[in-house]
Amino acid sequence: MKLAQTFGRNVRLIRQGKGLTIETLADEVCLSYSYVGELERGKRNPSLRVIGRFAEVLGVSPAELLI
Amino acid sequence: MKLAQTFGRNVRLIRQGKGLTIETLADEVCLSYSYVGELERGKRNPSLRVIGRFAEVLGVSPAELLI
Repeated sequence: MKLAQTFGRNVRLIRQGKGLTIETLADEVCLSYSYVGELERGKRNPSLRVIGRFAEVLGVSPAELLI
Repeated sequence: MKLAQTFGRNVRLIRQGKGLTIETLADEVCLSYSYVGELERGKRNPSLRVIGRFAEVLGVSPAELLI
């Protein structure tokens, strides 16, 4: 699995596990609904800073989003 | 420590541990010497794809570069 797909799958699983909608997560990470949707499908190439923001909002370490 | 600094420190430590110079690593990840030097000092904001390339060249998992 490509790293972008791994990252997207992890974001989606953790988001769903916390009962967050894509809208809520998108607001919290200050990104658009469509960007977060595409990212969860492995279609985006986020920067380290964006990875850190997702980790912070989802309450996990950045490394956990890449495993 | 900021995530960029953590990532840079890990790249530097693993690179040095493998006896690679910045030049060699820069060649392998297809980036400039100055970019890799700045990245190791935590001054860059690499994308997920670039993170994956560093992990591949250094022979570690991407997650290990963010711990």
